[in-house]
Amino acid sequence: MGRFREPPDPVFRSINTSVGFDRRLAAHDIAQSKAHVAMLAGSGVLSAEEAEQLTGCLEEVAAEVADGGFEVRPDDEDIHMAIERRLTELAGPVGGKLHTARSRNDQVATDMAMFVREEAESAQVLLAELLGTLIDQAERHIDWPMPGYTHLQRAQPVYLSHHLLAYFWMFKRDFDRFAFCRDACGELPLGAGALAGVNWNTSRMRVAEELGFEAVAANSLDAVSNRDFVLDYLSAASICAMHLSRLGGEIVLWSSEEFGFLELADSFSSGSSIMPQKKNPDAAELLRAKAPRVAAHLTALLGVLHGLPLAYNKDMQEDKEHLFDAVDTLDVCLRAAAGMLSTGIFKRDALAEAAGDEFLAATDVADLLVRRGLPFREAHGVVSSLVRHALEQKKKLSELSAEELSQFSDRLDKEYYEVLAAGSWLDSKVSEGGTSADRVQEQLGRAKKTLEGIGDAKA
Amino acid sequence: MGRFREPPDPVFRSINTSVGFDRRLAAHDIAQSKAHVAMLAGSGVLSAEEAEQLTGCLEEVAAEVADGGFEVRPDDEDIHMAIERRLTELAGPVGGKLHTARSRNDQVATDMAMFVREEAESAQVLLAELLGTLIDQAERHIDWPMPGYTHLQRAQPVYLSHHLLAYFWMFKRDFDRFAFCRDACGELPLGAGALAGVNWNTSRMRVAEELGFEAVAANSLDAVSNRDFVLDYLSAASICAMHLSRLGGEIVLWSSEEFGFLELADSFSSGSSIMPQKKNPDAAELLRAKAPRVAAHLTALLGVLHGLPLAYNKDMQEDKEHLFDAVDTLDVCLRAAAGMLSTGIFKRDALAEAAGDEFLAATDVADLLVRRGLPFREAHGVVSSLVRHALEQKKKLSELSAEELSQFSDRLDKEYYEVLAAGSWLDSKVSEGGTSADRVQEQLGRAKKTLEGIGDAKA
Amino acid sequence: MGRFREPPDPVFRSINTSVGFDRRLAAHDIAQSKAHVAMLAGSGVLSAEEAEQLTGCLEEVAAEVADGGFEVRPDDEDIHMAIERRLTELAGPVGGKLHTARSRNDQVATDMAMFVREEAESAQVLLAELLGTLIDQAERHIDWPMPGYTHLQRAQPVYLSHHLLAYFWMFKRDFDRFAFCRDACGELPLGAGALAGVNWNTSRMRVAEELGFEAVAANSLDAVSNRDFVLDYLSAASICAMHLSRLGGEIVLWSSEEFGFLELADSFSSGSSIMPQKKNPDAAELLRAKAPRVAAHLTALLGVLHGLPLAYNKDMQEDKEHLFDAVDTLDVCLRAAAGMLSTGIFKRDALAEAAGDEFLAATDVADLLVRRGLPFREAHGVVSSLVRHALEQKKKLSELSAEELSQFSDRLDKEYYEVLAAGSWLDSKVSEGGTSADRVQEQLGRAKKTLEGIGDAKA
Amino acid sequence: MGRFREPPDPVFRSINTSVGFDRRLAAHDIAQSKAHVAMLAGSGVLSAEEAEQLTGCLEEVAAEVADGGFEVRPDDEDIHMAIERRLTELAGPVGGKLHTARSRNDQVATDMAMFVREEAESAQVLLAELLGTLIDQAERHIDWPMPGYTHLQRAQPVYLSHHLLAYFWMFKRDFDRFAFCRDACGELPLGAGALAGVNWNTSRMRVAEELGFEAVAANSLDAVSNRDFVLDYLSAASICAMHLSRLGGEIVLWSSEEFGFLELADSFSSGSSIMPQKKNPDAAELLRAKAPRVAAHLTALLGVLHGLPLAYNKDMQEDKEHLFDAVDTLDVCLRAAAGMLSTGIFKRDALAEAAGDEFLAATDVADLLVRRGLPFREAHGVVSSLVRHALEQKKKLSELSAEELSQFSDRLDKEYYEVLAAGSWLDSKVSEGGTSADRVQEQLGRAKKTLEGIGDAKA
Repeated sequence: MGRFREPPDPVFRSINTSVGFDRRLAAHDIAQSKAHVAMLAGSGVLSAEEAEQLTGCLEEVAAEVADGGFEVRPDDEDIHMAIERRLTELAGPVGGKLHTARSRNDQVATDMAMFVREEAESAQVLLAELLGTLIDQAERHIDWPMPGYTHLQRAQPVYLSHHLLAYFWMFKRDFDRFAFCRDACGELPLGAGALAGVNWNTSRMRVAEELGFEAVAANSLDAVSNRDFVLDYLSAASICAMHLSRLGGEIVLWSSEEFGFLELADSFSSGSSIMPQKKNPDAAELLRAKAPRVAAHLTALLGVLHGLPLAYNKDMQEDKEHLFDAVDTLDVCLRAAAGMLSTGIFKRDALAEAAGDEFLAATDVADLLVRRGLPFREAHGVVSSLVRHALEQKKKLSELSAEELSQFSDRLDKEYYEVLAAGSWLDSKVSEGGTSADRVQEQLGRAKKTLEGIGDAKA
Repeated sequence: MGRFREPPDPVFRSINTSVGFDRRLAAHDIAQSKAHVAMLAGSGVLSAEEAEQLTGCLEEVAAEVADGGFEVRPDDEDIHMAIERRLTELAGPVGGKLHTARSRNDQVATDMAMFVREEAESAQVLLAELLGTLIDQAERHIDWPMPGYTHLQRAQPVYLSHHLLAYFWMFKRDFDRFAFCRDACGELPLGAGALAGVNWNTSRMRVAEELGFEAVAANSLDAVSNRDFVLDYLSAASICAMHLSRLGGEIVLWSSEEFGFLELADSFSSGSSIMPQKKNPDAAELLRAKAPRVAAHLTALLGVLHGLPLAYNKDMQEDKEHLFDAVDTLDVCLRAAAGMLSTGIFKRDALAEAAGDEFLAATDVADLLVRRGLPFREAHGVVSSLVRHALEQKKKLSELSAEELSQFSDRLDKEYYEVLAAGSWLDSKVSEGGTSADRVQEQLGRAKKTLEGIGDAKA
Repeated sequence: MGRFREPPDPVFRSINTSVGFDRRLAAHDIAQSKAHVAMLAGSGVLSAEEAEQLTGCLEEVAAEVADGGFEVRPDDEDIHMAIERRLTELAGPVGGKLHTARSRNDQVATDMAMFVREEAESAQVLLAELLGTLIDQAERHIDWPMPGYTHLQRAQPVYLSHHLLAYFWMFKRDFDRFAFCRDACGELPLGAGALAGVNWNTSRMRVAEELGFEAVAANSLDAVSNRDFVLDYLSAASICAMHLSRLGGEIVLWSSEEFGFLELADSFSSGSSIMPQKKNPDAAELLRAKAPRVAAHLTALLGVLHGLPLAYNKDMQEDKEHLFDAVDTLDVCLRAAAGMLSTGIFKRDALAEAAGDEFLAATDVADLLVRRGLPFREAHGVVSSLVRHALEQKKKLSELSAEELSQFSDRLDKEYYEVLAAGSWLDSKVSEGGTSADRVQEQLGRAKKTLEGIGDAKA
Repeated sequence: MGRFREPPDPVFRSINTSVGFDRRLAAHDIAQSKAHVAMLAGSGVLSAEEAEQLTGCLEEVAAEVADGGFEVRPDDEDIHMAIERRLTELAGPVGGKLHTARSRNDQVATDMAMFVREEAESAQVLLAELLGTLIDQAERHIDWPMPGYTHLQRAQPVYLSHHLLAYFWMFKRDFDRFAFCRDACGELPLGAGALAGVNWNTSRMRVAEELGFEAVAANSLDAVSNRDFVLDYLSAASICAMHLSRLGGEIVLWSSEEFGFLELADSFSSGSSIMPQKKNPDAAELLRAKAPRVAAHLTALLGVLHGLPLAYNKDMQEDKEHLFDAVDTLDVCLRAAAGMLSTGIFKRDALAEAAGDEFLAATDVADLLVRRGLPFREAHGVVSSLVRHALEQKKKLSELSAEELSQFSDRLDKEYYEVLAAGSWLDSKVSEGGTSADRVQEQLGRAKKTLEGIGDAKA
């Protein structure tokens, strides 16, 4: 830079240089440069020959990037400078014309918008696969009873399919969040220049169309200082990672000897360096452990942007590493979740035995009393006392005699014992969205249709 | 609770009780209870008389809540229990029938969805007001030059209107985020029961319609364990608060003696307890300082949900205080931002003087060389050297002689001095979204239309 | 404030006023004012009569605060102004002399340092109680075997006492962290004035001694802009809350039907509004759920201070609510942890049965082979194959015949069966800090001595 | 691992493998293995020949690591396995004996404790250098007046030395925090085995001494599940990074045209890709921007550990990347801060002119009235009115006539004008820790002595 007399200090260089990580944007950077060149030629700023030459050389650089031959030099501050430097080596002085009517500020914002758009779409593809896996597994386990839990206490039995479909809807909402994020990348920053627009009557809409943007950013200051779309990605990723952590946490639980509901495939398990008997659910634990990392990237970037004056500040260079790591983390987590779910073996007997715990029918007994005229709150009280009595006597509910029952209510007759006959408690949950077999079938249909809708939208 | 022999320990009570904060949901809780009663009557679970009696008493309770007369008792664990307790005092044993076919789990999820929907809409209203304020101030300062900054260094001049409109687009994106959040509240949890659905063929859709939900939650487990819509609110609020922190930060800067661009109204300023001369921009500082607080609530709730097994866990009670404080914080910040902006006085002379700094025209000089055939990268080098020369000579750029110029380039003639004639640098930014007067007018029109579109959507 | 013409806008007031929360500092504020008055009198700035009158009236205000009679007025911006206003009502014009030679900036920093010191000590007291509870329970369950887990898989048996003592050392480290925090509050800010010191030759050391500070802050700018001690508290509290969340998480697990290791007291459990059989570990879940809240306060305050120029900025008013909520949260969590631990009933049989799982002896079998000359890595491989064989044959390890063993190694003889005889696996862990009975006794002794050391330090 | 039939899935491998980052622990891992071997030989578990052979080969591996020749293979799950694999290649079957009496769980905890100890010490060294730089610059600018700010409004003048020394005390506290962290690494985990201790009567204290630990961890479960020392590092680093962000923020401000207090060296500045005149304080912006990143690592690790059951869980593998990035970030930030401070040029005239603003003497005028008997609160009111009058009349305070003064108070005489004669306001701040020249000298002495004390402690 001509106004400086001294070269950068090595410490300055090491804090300032970004080419170690922003080289990941190389392909997008070249694509935008090509669109920029085409537009400059269309606007008469470059001649056709210049444009042709620049385009050809940009394609050469792109090829080098693609095949790994592209070299970064110690002096290359960032990937934009590295590419322009290489272009100029190939094209000669005309390479210096590429940067007409743009700045690194709008350039990097454009790269980032392109990158986020691509990664939001990629997350949607992986989510759609995970949704498909959940539907498959729900179908395969459509009528397998298991205990439903609240407070990690057995509460009421549900079908395993119903439990799996709960995750379907969680990840479906994540899919929608990435759609929002994708749309948030729809306005082209390029052409905003350093912050104020450029001294050339460029056609930003033409560039937008070529690069797949729906519109141009309305305000040049905002265009270079806006990283909302990165935050939208990180926010969607954080919520999705939290969902994955819940799935990971449940897989860990279910794989314990105590629960014994699930055995992960060997291909998704680890051994121990010291204990030969161990089969550890490492991937599920990591699924759980990665969520705070993604959320931390969101928090960090919000912190970076906190209180920053307009327009571009160097602080914003911090957007990249936070985003890149979040992208990679989410990618491997979504794949691992699908892999574990599709290869793990559920244990029908262990699930059924746990689901057969009679105390899970306590609400059904209370509802029997309600049908016989007792207000629910009173019925709840009666059954609570029954439960305590049974626990103290170490009896199951169905082992209580008619005489014992009569101490608690005069409305408990044979139907009491019928209600306790296992299975009926599950299919008694007939409300919309409930766990009765018909309702789960209905829900499965709705899920399939939703997934098809997603496929159609993509096609 | 009948199965327990001992009363709660005072320490247990103090960690467990939520009525101190969840009473804020009272009105929503009563509204949903009324809809629930109407549905139960329609489904034949309650008689018409029972329903009428319950409805009447619920309205009495609502009136007590509205006029502040509703009393919480030490034994009331949460607002749901408090309301049911009061209802039963008024209605007698029939009060105990209210809780038929529902659980606190779906009940509290429903209250929360109603609350978030209302607050998302409220944020949208406040944002629309702020957008209006920004348009007004942009119009009022349409042609006031000021320096645009990057790295907090003067970069290129812009119009103050252009700078203010940058915030317009930031807050417009926030508006869209709250719209997404509002939609995320569209599925009714009620009827999911504790987690598995209920033993009654209820009509959840009827309740949904009465309470303004678009659909019913598809899966009962998900319905009670889902707090995504709270996260959506907190995420939207975090990004919005970050935008407000940037505005607050700029107001603090602009109010300093060094910048002197803005004087806040006395009604939005503080004095000092010890220094009689001080006029402090406290509200702007707080606008800045509140952003990490909102983001912390988001992080915290993500942390609470991290790794939680399905379905409901008590951990989820933590959703409320985080949300409530975020709502209140955002509310006061949005109002304060609008208040400060609409009452502050910009200083035309100070802005213009700073914008007249000739070094801000350096890019224009470089572009002049480009128009004369020099590649931009070379032109940039030439002007960088010119700038250094001027700084060393303590001259303005326009004070350099033709002879001096000729040492740097043979393409700098009279037009060089014309370019430096102030003002032209601003209107040379003719690209779409740039700061030239025409482009700013165009942008202002687009902003107005956007705001009208918002108003129409609401009407 | 005399230089202003307009009164504060209601919106300004609502964002700016802190008296709603900083009234919690009232007692400290009055104590420091009394010390300030005594010093001013000693330095000749106030007459003895003035000092006496101010002191008397400050004591009156203190009494009002203590008995709840102290009233805050709408115009009182903060607790400092409220107290000075009330003082002046009582004392007349001389009240206006109190604020000589100090500013709200050093005043509030002093209040905060006093508050944090007190709360750090209070956390230490509660931690010492919890440490005592852990020792008691470890002694009571000194020889109860249970499975030790890694990856939530049964790994090797341990004594319950050993497991409980693991928490002892965690909370002991928290104790040390609060000691560091307490020391970090040792430098008196008062006397720094607004930022530059005061125009009076005050004796800051005298005030420090009276208020229990070890020294005076060395630099007036730092004194008013330093909130490190609040961060130290929040950091210590965050780590402690994380430890509590681990304990809470384990209590939840252990209370599940699947584990069945612990039954919480009724007085620390909740029922369900719909399921009469439920006994929910709500307090343990909340113990877990509160940790992200405390950590969020730390993150938030770091965010508030991020990038702030010296010296005092209004942003720093945000320190209070974050701190106060963290203090209250930690307080109730520490009490709840001690309460649950001291009243819960461990289930000896369930623990022992789980600990008797023979696969937990696999490492011991491998070590047998090592003692017979096999490198550990090979021994590990042999036993891994043995385990797979046993699993496939659905046999326990001890049910494998000598013939079967010989397929895997020729070094497995009778001692193999002896190793598998339960109990020996536990007491084979003879290394320092291991779970053998002698080592646990040794450790218990060390823990008791540590706790006594704490008690002595306090006494 | 022998009990598994299927090889790891590629997705599993990619989420599970840590060798990409934990290879950073290689040197520590080998050092602890050497100490472990020596102890095993001393305890008779290994023969002298075996120990010699293993030690020799470990040194070979160490040499490969040091010269970059050490190769990681695709099957190496982590650095521990990679080193053991390589060792066995070199040593043959005896390599398999290395892992006797230890587990990866205690091994990795030990590596981490060694790493954190080293990095805490390294941070202390860098902090000591920065403290030295601050003392140098304070001495060089001992008597340069500048405005002190509160709320970013000029408040009272201070010496630049005083302002710089404020940072001295901030970073000194960071130094102390790293000392605490260093001590927190003082207990050796090795010998805890997987979680329960090992089946060998090892001498952990011998290993501790050899590796520089003060003691052995008292509880084997805690030893493998404890990462408090990592949190202690991250907490110290977060607060230090926040301090650096304040320094960075001030450098950005001071480098602006509006403040003009500081010109960074060319070697610590960047240019602009489009604007030839720009000299941007990129390193200072990055100093500011890195603080949220460090804090995010702390939050993330707290989140990872949240609610985890004892003892080791795979989640804990996440400790490494968070720590490593925090270490690297802090390292470069501390160096950059020292570099910028020692090479930047302060602008005496600009500082002095800003410090000469007469309104900064308002408190001195009020104190004059106090000395003449007015209660401070009244004096404050009088001067506030004076200030408003001067502002309205566009006069300096010293330009007000005696007649004008008399409208506000009859106690303002000649001394009023004397007070306003610049300079006296600075040296009037005579209180301990204040900005008067004597007090700053005193403080400088205290700072030097503190730094010497640090040096002595290290020597």
